[in-house]
Amino acid sequence: MRVEGQERRTIWLAGDGRAVEIIDQRRLPFDLVLRRLESVCDVADAIRDMAVRGAPLIGVTAAYGLWLALREDASDAALEAARRQLLATRPTAVNLRWAVDHVTGIVQGLAPSGRADAALASAGELADADVECCRAMAEHGVALLEEAHAARNAPGPLQVLTHCNAGWLACVDWGTALGPIYLAHRRGIPVHVWVDETRPRNQGALTAWELGQEGVAHTVVVDNAGGHLMQRGRVDLCITGSDRTTGSGDVCNKIGTYLKALAARESGVPFYVAAPSSSIDWTLDDGVAQIPIEERDGAEVARVTGWLEGQGALDVAIFPEKSPVANVAFDVTPAALVTGLVTERGVCAATREGLAELFPDRSA
Amino acid sequence: MRVEGQERRTIWLAGDGRAVEIIDQRRLPFDLVLRRLESVCDVADAIRDMAVRGAPLIGVTAAYGLWLALREDASDAALEAARRQLLATRPTAVNLRWAVDHVTGIVQGLAPSGRADAALASAGELADADVECCRAMAEHGVALLEEAHAARNAPGPLQVLTHCNAGWLACVDWGTALGPIYLAHRRGIPVHVWVDETRPRNQGALTAWELGQEGVAHTVVVDNAGGHLMQRGRVDLCITGSDRTTGSGDVCNKIGTYLKALAARESGVPFYVAAPSSSIDWTLDDGVAQIPIEERDGAEVARVTGWLEGQGALDVAIFPEKSPVANVAFDVTPAALVTGLVTERGVCAATREGLAELFPDRSA
Repeated sequence: MRVEGQERRTIWLAGDGRAVEIIDQRRLPFDLVLRRLESVCDVADAIRDMAVRGAPLIGVTAAYGLWLALREDASDAALEAARRQLLATRPTAVNLRWAVDHVTGIVQGLAPSGRADAALASAGELADADVECCRAMAEHGVALLEEAHAARNAPGPLQVLTHCNAGWLACVDWGTALGPIYLAHRRGIPVHVWVDETRPRNQGALTAWELGQEGVAHTVVVDNAGGHLMQRGRVDLCITGSDRTTGSGDVCNKIGTYLKALAARESGVPFYVAAPSSSIDWTLDDGVAQIPIEERDGAEVARVTGWLEGQGALDVAIFPEKSPVANVAFDVTPAALVTGLVTERGVCAATREGLAELFPDRSA
Repeated sequence: MRVEGQERRTIWLAGDGRAVEIIDQRRLPFDLVLRRLESVCDVADAIRDMAVRGAPLIGVTAAYGLWLALREDASDAALEAARRQLLATRPTAVNLRWAVDHVTGIVQGLAPSGRADAALASAGELADADVECCRAMAEHGVALLEEAHAARNAPGPLQVLTHCNAGWLACVDWGTALGPIYLAHRRGIPVHVWVDETRPRNQGALTAWELGQEGVAHTVVVDNAGGHLMQRGRVDLCITGSDRTTGSGDVCNKIGTYLKALAARESGVPFYVAAPSSSIDWTLDDGVAQIPIEERDGAEVARVTGWLEGQGALDVAIFPEKSPVANVAFDVTPAALVTGLVTERGVCAATREGLAELFPDRSA
């Protein structure tokens, strides 16, 4: 997507071929800072410190990390050490483990002299595959936006609401929930996006930055506002991402998604979820009963990173240290509240049958 | 209520009888700072700068402001000037106008020499009347909490969720939604309160401070969390305040209240609203159609006041200045989502009939 007028991905091979480069997402939305990662340690730091974030991007970054490690030392011992180092950065990230295991599996069978090149090629393939997956979801999802725009009875742009950041910053390009919006915009469908702030980590700031760079009209609102906006007919369609989707269509996503889905049903607003097949856990049937919800450090709620003119980023307390705080990171939106799932193979009902039609090879 | 172990109101006559004193709410929850208001200008500043907030408290503070003005100069011209000065501080505050007009009406018929004393007496009566109203609501509301606690099938305290600050800091004492909780706590009913942060102005920090001072167990959560908590059976009862209540029982309250009411209905959690009769507009029938919703300065969303160790309060940006932001301050919860209204005359159904039974004198 566009950044300051230039097409970018979130991660790319440096011009000299000796490193990978990333956008340091901790400085967004205030500063665009690019970082060069020259070693597996640089990569591990970038993942751990959340300079990169979002499941697909973390996986691809780790894959490049294996390349950088093997370039220094391609022995079995070095491969195993790099593998462990990368897996320890974000222990619960499913895509991280998948990507690291995938590249390890490819290079393990090779002689050490060929391992670094193979890892580099494999990391590049993973990046391209993620772009292709997001692009396919965007193509399928844009049809829903076109339809909704055609069905609009009022003048003005299509009004879309989204929660959290399921944009290209979480992926390599396009994004999941935002992909259809970017494609609609590029095709000339007028779109305006209500961007949920998404407390406690305020990923709405990333979504707003992405949309602004691409020239998509948008407005940031607090998470409390969406119900009112839908009640007053100011939202035509909601679309969010999914961190984990059950085989029956329940969606586990950023905390607060469920409240927006309730409001959407109440006001007759379609609620779509962009759920790549990599997010689907076919073994699960009941998201509320079966998906454990991560509770994170309360400091994410009690403190906020803001910018002070002249001083840059500052971490300030908004609740006193002794104030008891809970930080539930995700919630489950039952399938009955989801109008449809947007996948890389098409749009389907949020049901086991709907998913099985698109993924007969995986759902069995 | 208790502050550092001592019983306090939000406003009181100074020990020397020459001023009123208040808790400066801008410094909460980090610092307890008392301020002495010695003139009508001090009072006007305190209201305008939100050192005092909450409709009932603003009204009472303004009444004391008239006393301070008349003590300096009790002429008709001075009275009129003070009246205008106070009304200009928060132009849309209904209680402010009501209290100022009430005291003006009382002193206007008196000789100048008696006006200051009459205004002081009248301000004191308004303060006491507010305490009495809140205390009555607490008595009626506590029965609901007792009932809910008795009906609880699980061990542990009654789990209550509240949104915004409808506590004693918004009133003179007790508060509206928090009054029943304080009374339950004092009567030995174990209560734990989930405190919504309440973006954008984070009034949850005030609620948490109040509850902590009184010794009521509580946990702050982001506004996104309540749906999940109710879905998982972790909330027994919701109670909020009301800024404006229609004669038919619709509730206009802080933005986000509506989303919690939707989640409560979905999970079978009773949703009560503490609505003193002063909040009821008998002429209104349809809150969604008839109540205009204030849109406030986007800077309230884009910037946050936090505390930095060693530096005190700091106003920092969390969204870039050029990021488009909307700030809808209130929403309407339709009566159908409200289990009951807690008023100073008792609890009733959120219907015109329910309210008419308690207020036959006003609803006609």
